Amino acid sequence: MATISSPLTPEAGKVVGEALQGALVDLIDLSLTAKQAHWNLIGHQFRSVHLQLDEVVSLARTHMDVMAERAIALGFNPDGRASTVASTSQLPHFDSGYIQDGKVVAGMTDILGGIVKRMRERVASTEQTDPVTQDLLIEATQDLEKQHWMWEAQR
Amino acid sequence: MATISSPLTPEAGKVVGEALQGALVDLIDLSLTAKQAHWNLIGHQFRSVHLQLDEVVSLARTHMDVMAERAIALGFNPDGRASTVASTSQLPHFDSGYIQDGKVVAGMTDILGGIVKRMRERVASTEQTDPVTQDLLIEATQDLEKQHWMWEAQR
Amino acid sequence: MATISSPLTPEAGKVVGEALQGALVDLIDLSLTAKQAHWNLIGHQFRSVHLQLDEVVSLARTHMDVMAERAIALGFNPDGRASTVASTSQLPHFDSGYIQDGKVVAGMTDILGGIVKRMRERVASTEQTDPVTQDLLIEATQDLEKQHWMWEAQR
Amino acid sequence: MATISSPLTPEAGKVVGEALQGALVDLIDLSLTAKQAHWNLIGHQFRSVHLQLDEVVSLARTHMDVMAERAIALGFNPDGRASTVASTSQLPHFDSGYIQDGKVVAGMTDILGGIVKRMRERVASTEQTDPVTQDLLIEATQDLEKQHWMWEAQR
Amino acid sequence: MATISSPLTPEAGKVVGEALQGALVDLIDLSLTAKQAHWNLIGHQFRSVHLQLDEVVSLARTHMDVMAERAIALGFNPDGRASTVASTSQLPHFDSGYIQDGKVVAGMTDILGGIVKRMRERVASTEQTDPVTQDLLIEATQDLEKQHWMWEAQR
Amino acid sequence: MATISSPLTPEAGKVVGEALQGALVDLIDLSLTAKQAHWNLIGHQFRSVHLQLDEVVSLARTHMDVMAERAIALGFNPDGRASTVASTSQLPHFDSGYIQDGKVVAGMTDILGGIVKRMRERVASTEQTDPVTQDLLIEATQDLEKQHWMWEAQR
Amino acid sequence: MATISSPLTPEAGKVVGEALQGALVDLIDLSLTAKQAHWNLIGHQFRSVHLQLDEVVSLARTHMDVMAERAIALGFNPDGRASTVASTSQLPHFDSGYIQDGKVVAGMTDILGGIVKRMRERVASTEQTDPVTQDLLIEATQDLEKQHWMWEAQR
Amino acid sequence: MATISSPLTPEAGKVVGEALQGALVDLIDLSLTAKQAHWNLIGHQFRSVHLQLDEVVSLARTHMDVMAERAIALGFNPDGRASTVASTSQLPHFDSGYIQDGKVVAGMTDILGGIVKRMRERVASTEQTDPVTQDLLIEATQDLEKQHWMWEAQR
Amino acid sequence: MATISSPLTPEAGKVVGEALQGALVDLIDLSLTAKQAHWNLIGHQFRSVHLQLDEVVSLARTHMDVMAERAIALGFNPDGRASTVASTSQLPHFDSGYIQDGKVVAGMTDILGGIVKRMRERVASTEQTDPVTQDLLIEATQDLEKQHWMWEAQR
Amino acid sequence: MATISSPLTPEAGKVVGEALQGALVDLIDLSLTAKQAHWNLIGHQFRSVHLQLDEVVSLARTHMDVMAERAIALGFNPDGRASTVASTSQLPHFDSGYIQDGKVVAGMTDILGGIVKRMRERVASTEQTDPVTQDLLIEATQDLEKQHWMWEAQR
Amino acid sequence: MATISSPLTPEAGKVVGEALQGALVDLIDLSLTAKQAHWNLIGHQFRSVHLQLDEVVSLARTHMDVMAERAIALGFNPDGRASTVASTSQLPHFDSGYIQDGKVVAGMTDILGGIVKRMRERVASTEQTDPVTQDLLIEATQDLEKQHWMWEAQR
Amino acid sequence: MATISSPLTPEAGKVVGEALQGALVDLIDLSLTAKQAHWNLIGHQFRSVHLQLDEVVSLARTHMDVMAERAIALGFNPDGRASTVASTSQLPHFDSGYIQDGKVVAGMTDILGGIVKRMRERVASTEQTDPVTQDLLIEATQDLEKQHWMWEAQR
Repeated sequence: MATISSPLTPEAGKVVGEALQGALVDLIDLSLTAKQAHWNLIGHQFRSVHLQLDEVVSLARTHMDVMAERAIALGFNPDGRASTVASTSQLPHFDSGYIQDGKVVAGMTDILGGIVKRMRERVASTEQTDPVTQDLLIEATQDLEKQHWMWEAQR
Repeated sequence: MATISSPLTPEAGKVVGEALQGALVDLIDLSLTAKQAHWNLIGHQFRSVHLQLDEVVSLARTHMDVMAERAIALGFNPDGRASTVASTSQLPHFDSGYIQDGKVVAGMTDILGGIVKRMRERVASTEQTDPVTQDLLIEATQDLEKQHWMWEAQR
Repeated sequence: MATISSPLTPEAGKVVGEALQGALVDLIDLSLTAKQAHWNLIGHQFRSVHLQLDEVVSLARTHMDVMAERAIALGFNPDGRASTVASTSQLPHFDSGYIQDGKVVAGMTDILGGIVKRMRERVASTEQTDPVTQDLLIEATQDLEKQHWMWEAQR
Repeated sequence: MATISSPLTPEAGKVVGEALQGALVDLIDLSLTAKQAHWNLIGHQFRSVHLQLDEVVSLARTHMDVMAERAIALGFNPDGRASTVASTSQLPHFDSGYIQDGKVVAGMTDILGGIVKRMRERVASTEQTDPVTQDLLIEATQDLEKQHWMWEAQR
Repeated sequence: MATISSPLTPEAGKVVGEALQGALVDLIDLSLTAKQAHWNLIGHQFRSVHLQLDEVVSLARTHMDVMAERAIALGFNPDGRASTVASTSQLPHFDSGYIQDGKVVAGMTDILGGIVKRMRERVASTEQTDPVTQDLLIEATQDLEKQHWMWEAQR
Repeated sequence: MATISSPLTPEAGKVVGEALQGALVDLIDLSLTAKQAHWNLIGHQFRSVHLQLDEVVSLARTHMDVMAERAIALGFNPDGRASTVASTSQLPHFDSGYIQDGKVVAGMTDILGGIVKRMRERVASTEQTDPVTQDLLIEATQDLEKQHWMWEAQR
Repeated sequence: MATISSPLTPEAGKVVGEALQGALVDLIDLSLTAKQAHWNLIGHQFRSVHLQLDEVVSLARTHMDVMAERAIALGFNPDGRASTVASTSQLPHFDSGYIQDGKVVAGMTDILGGIVKRMRERVASTEQTDPVTQDLLIEATQDLEKQHWMWEAQR
Repeated sequence: MATISSPLTPEAGKVVGEALQGALVDLIDLSLTAKQAHWNLIGHQFRSVHLQLDEVVSLARTHMDVMAERAIALGFNPDGRASTVASTSQLPHFDSGYIQDGKVVAGMTDILGGIVKRMRERVASTEQTDPVTQDLLIEATQDLEKQHWMWEAQR
Repeated sequence: MATISSPLTPEAGKVVGEALQGALVDLIDLSLTAKQAHWNLIGHQFRSVHLQLDEVVSLARTHMDVMAERAIALGFNPDGRASTVASTSQLPHFDSGYIQDGKVVAGMTDILGGIVKRMRERVASTEQTDPVTQDLLIEATQDLEKQHWMWEAQR
Repeated sequence: MATISSPLTPEAGKVVGEALQGALVDLIDLSLTAKQAHWNLIGHQFRSVHLQLDEVVSLARTHMDVMAERAIALGFNPDGRASTVASTSQLPHFDSGYIQDGKVVAGMTDILGGIVKRMRERVASTEQTDPVTQDLLIEATQDLEKQHWMWEAQR
Repeated sequence: MATISSPLTPEAGKVVGEALQGALVDLIDLSLTAKQAHWNLIGHQFRSVHLQLDEVVSLARTHMDVMAERAIALGFNPDGRASTVASTSQLPHFDSGYIQDGKVVAGMTDILGGIVKRMRERVASTEQTDPVTQDLLIEATQDLEKQHWMWEAQR
Repeated sequence: MATISSPLTPEAGKVVGEALQGALVDLIDLSLTAKQAHWNLIGHQFRSVHLQLDEVVSLARTHMDVMAERAIALGFNPDGRASTVASTSQLPHFDSGYIQDGKVVAGMTDILGGIVKRMRERVASTEQTDPVTQDLLIEATQDLEKQHWMWEAQR
């Protein structure tokens, strides 16, 4: 069966592949978590928070596709299956049931803060191994840090 | 903490809530599974299958939102978290790594066939309990059965 | 003078016509009431509530046209004149003058809750008499119940 | 409770507020009356008249919002509730039931002629009291007089 | 050669397939008949009738595709060939040559009246056999009944 | 009853009218035949062929309208009724039931090849009789020959 | 002062230039005449005729620009000044004041009939002298003959 | 024959009608003159001037329609026929043949300057007679004065 | 060097020029001040206020361009340089650093209240000197007063 | 290996194929030459010329695709490879390095003049051999001659 | 009062914050300076330069928002108030009054040259301190250097 | 004659200029090669490959313009003439005549693989010399590597 050839050395490929797989899991789980809050939200700020959560979902879906397609373009198989996300994600999660708006604001700030921290490590690890990938990680980080600010600002 | 009041009786609400939660898990997992194949696909039919998988993702994302928002509008908390999807989904999954195009066609036909079967049970169970919900389940089923045909036709 | 012929029996036509006329009055009054609040609103949540009220107006205007055109298509003359709405509407109303945002949220929840209750009766009464009309009542009910949830969630 | 401060003197504000409230009632009732005819219309010219009536509805809805938002921006509470419209409107109305196309053409010409007359009085009364408001009344009058011509031309 | 598997029992499938095939022939012939009148029309109401006929064509083309794709999705082969339409259609037809506008209005009212009658029988026959298909037949019927009203109103 | 006056001599009008009527029948039957294959298609190339068939339908519908409106503009009554198409069309047809993708590719190539041959005769016959009509036949032929190439290329 | 060089011989250029100048005057005057009727129209068919007249204006404006730009591209100076149009146009004109709808329909049919006749002479005169120009004259003639049909059909 | 009734007194109507007729002639002739220069232009600034002339044409066509429709809405018959424009226009004109870009810039500045002067007289004459019309004259004047500046700036 | 000629007398030009220059400075500073708050905002209402501030920026940028282009069209040189704005603006300003949402709401209400007051003086001063300019000042005032209401309503 | 069958005789096919191949090379080289000037342009008219060159590129790319697809539709293999263009193009070229605007204007006029001359020979050679192809060559020639005028006009 | 937490160390944050604040002031002043020239421009190249200046304004406004939002996302308060811009900007400015087109071209080239120089220093200073910010500075620099070329090319 | 000044040192400029010129030739030749295959393609996968080749053309055209405009913005004259491309391109080429789909897939994979290799060298060589240029090379490389994957996946 055919496989995709990579422009990277095996060593570089491994570092970059792990960075992309990590980002993929972060972003898929972010999209699911934001949707969970989008649906179960309660509180005076309902409408604002409800709409902003969908912006996060949209952002997460866009970048997850970029991460996974970048991985496969380098010959690294991305894994975005539910079980993989459930077992390897480092995101804290909301409890089931209603979620108060203030709790969502605090939770999203923390979740985004954690992802940003990991994304910056991925930006660092790909600087030498593949600047072409690094640029895509940087773009995702820009959007995530902007969202982090906007959630923290209304905390 | 506020909760959403339901126009249904508790008994009807339980039946409808379970139907919607089941559909939600099916549709989230369908979106993740189709994306997994979209990324790891290999074969002569790559382009056609790659594009059609994204139509499935788009369809699944649209209907999952409808299902979850319908649930909460009835005062039933939907649960679309990765761990819930991973532990309760009935979808068969693709192995990690490259997936041959023929295997995707066969797999998607089977996966959609299974979901359709469960959706028809949900259509039946909501006919008396809540025809307003049933109509949304019917619309999702129409789209899923159309996709099922288009995958099976190229098997 | 020409009249429109109906595919329904006179008995069924009467039931369906009354359901549609009732829905028409509910929806016209909903559009006027939501505009009244849209204009006279005061409070910290002004912008969110102001915008959401216009979504209700838009939804009400869309469905009122569907209801009235469905009625006439069945040979039943809809009546949406101001005096008819004023004298037959069952909606509670806001007082004249400024309306505090919290009061709008509570009021819209109640108003929508009342309309939903009547819409469900109309869905039930048309199930046997005209399933083609019932489907349009169901679609309106879906949108109204979704709005009801979103107002109640921020109560 | 907060109120909106006005840039006008109380005397000027009273004149302007009444002009806007009068225009608001005229325009809301125009939108309801045109819809009534749009639905119950019969005759060889059905399609042309049916479509033109919706242009009147659209025009009336646009300007009614401008009038009401202008009133509140001046600290005057607009009142667009069904009962207010029904009890204070000066528009002649169509009978219930089918309306022949020729009767609609004649009726709309008369209704618009009456509104135009009142709008011109409002344009005159606001010239000194608030030229900023007068400009919005003039724009509405331009559209109403154009419609008046187009209905009268096919009488 | 592959075939499409159906979620219906053979008995239900037969009923549903015949309903869809009947609707398909009605809609194809409606599209051809409306075009025939669109081209050969004569009379003072030319422009209005000419444009409205194309709305019927557009409506008929949209629903015919839905009917046929629904049939094949259930494993039933739709047949929309010219000879099948010509030999099985129950629509009355216009004579060749010029058609006066009044004759088109009367003819379209009758043609649509006949189709609506058959559509309602199909709605009834699919209620138990396949509610998922019934919903699509209901949507087509809504549009056809609306057109029927608008033609009859100008008779 | 009014008739449309023609800028052509009766002799030229007869030649041109027959050319347009022939093209009209070819194009209507092409649209029905392509839809038949669009629905009953089976095979590994399903998606590509399914989509390309709809491009043929769209092309055929566009040009059929041009042909018929050109005919009537010259005072010649076009006839596009199902029975006329069924009895005068020279297109070979697909059997009822499933159609394998390879068979569709071969069939469409042949069908388009036949139409192109007849269109070129029509282009020739109208060169002297009406160059204004010839130009429209040439445009249709360009599109049909382009489609012919694209089907033959994948044979 | 620079001039535009022509790909045609002086003899051919003269023939082609005159054809284009003639078409230009016809089309400018058509646009002014149709606007005159668009404004001063009276009658039951007001709305249909009013709208169709603007289609003629739009068509005339589009083709007049093509004619004039084609002339200058061949080094022939087009002249579209009001005095030139007034003194050289062969169009019959409407009287000043109100124009009854029936009179407009008859008048537009005659005006378009006359232009079509002259356009066909221009198509003939440019066949040998410049087929590149002839093609543009043919396109204008197609649109004018289509309009001629649609006016004559409602006579 | 029907006529359009006016909200103005006969004296006011005469003043306003003459102002609108004057503006109409100015604007029609402006559109024809700008097109004449658009086509016959020569010079290094060709592209800029060619494009800017079409902005003038577009502006003139928009406002001429407003002026004429305003006139008829007041029961005054506008006259925009070529002969009326040719005999009553006060615009200076370009000679036939090529026009150098510098000459166009100077010419357009003068032409617009003259129209602006007349428009301001019309604004003044309608201030008391009909402020509703005056507002439309003011809007046209704003656009014309803006164009005047942009032509004079490049002189 | 060329200058732009004015349709106004020098005296009128001076009054109008100063009104426009004053409005220009107000609007530029409004756009900068609203952006400053848009960026440094903190508080529970963050998202609503953040978005509304950008509506103010957009409104201010649109009208500032109108004011400046109107000035130059009258031969008066507008001055919108940073130093001019900084030294002549009468707007109160936010301190540097974070700004609490409640403080923004209060601040914007006051700032807009001040501008509205000055705009009304400009509307008054241009009524006799140049009604063409006055109309543009009125339009800006309408938008500013609407914004003033919407900020004050949420105070 | 499959080949595309042609509706033309071998003799006609050879003439037409050569005409299309010649046009293809002209148009590809035109697109590359215009881009070369677009990038290396210098001079006071930079912006106008820079933008107009991209219009030429766009036009050349559109028609080159039409020419090549027409050739292959006739069974003639188009050759648009860089080496073929470089070795067979008859276009004069710009030197490397900066190109003054006046030189671009003169150069583009000459280049387009040369292409137009060859296009007219192709129009002539295909008149009898294939009028369907001729029509496409005529359309390309219309666009090229229009561009030629616009460049020459600013020489 | 809440503040925004930064992913950077205080030292890095200081360097990055100063780079962003410097870029912000440059870009705001660029937007104001380009508008000043856009309004007061005089000369034969008026239209080209007028339009190009608005492209600069648009570019400057887009990037200024990015810079400021990036700063606050890092917990650094951007300062874009008029007084800050006026007192800290390093841009040379145009004098008040009319500005000749050649002077604008030269001035914009110099202004952009200066900004580019400072932007490159900011790109350098952020390479180690924050590559995520550096990427945004690089994108702004790309656009500014492109503009610099296009102004210098027409010098 | 004016030249464009560069923000780079001559040494850096030389490295960057050569990188951009190399990328330009690669991208122009890629666009021509992909078009050649787009036209001469034969095989069962015709439609998929035909469409995908146009995506490559579009991508190549977009990036070639970026490369060339970046070069000139740095004062380096790009050379994209046919002869330069033909003599300096390192791309392997397809033979003239029909090209089988499998051969296109293999060829495009190899061609893209080669370009990617050279692009990565250019990314490396510009890292120190000009990070602003490097970012544009990285973006092009991202798109090219994505295409490379999608072609290789269907090999």
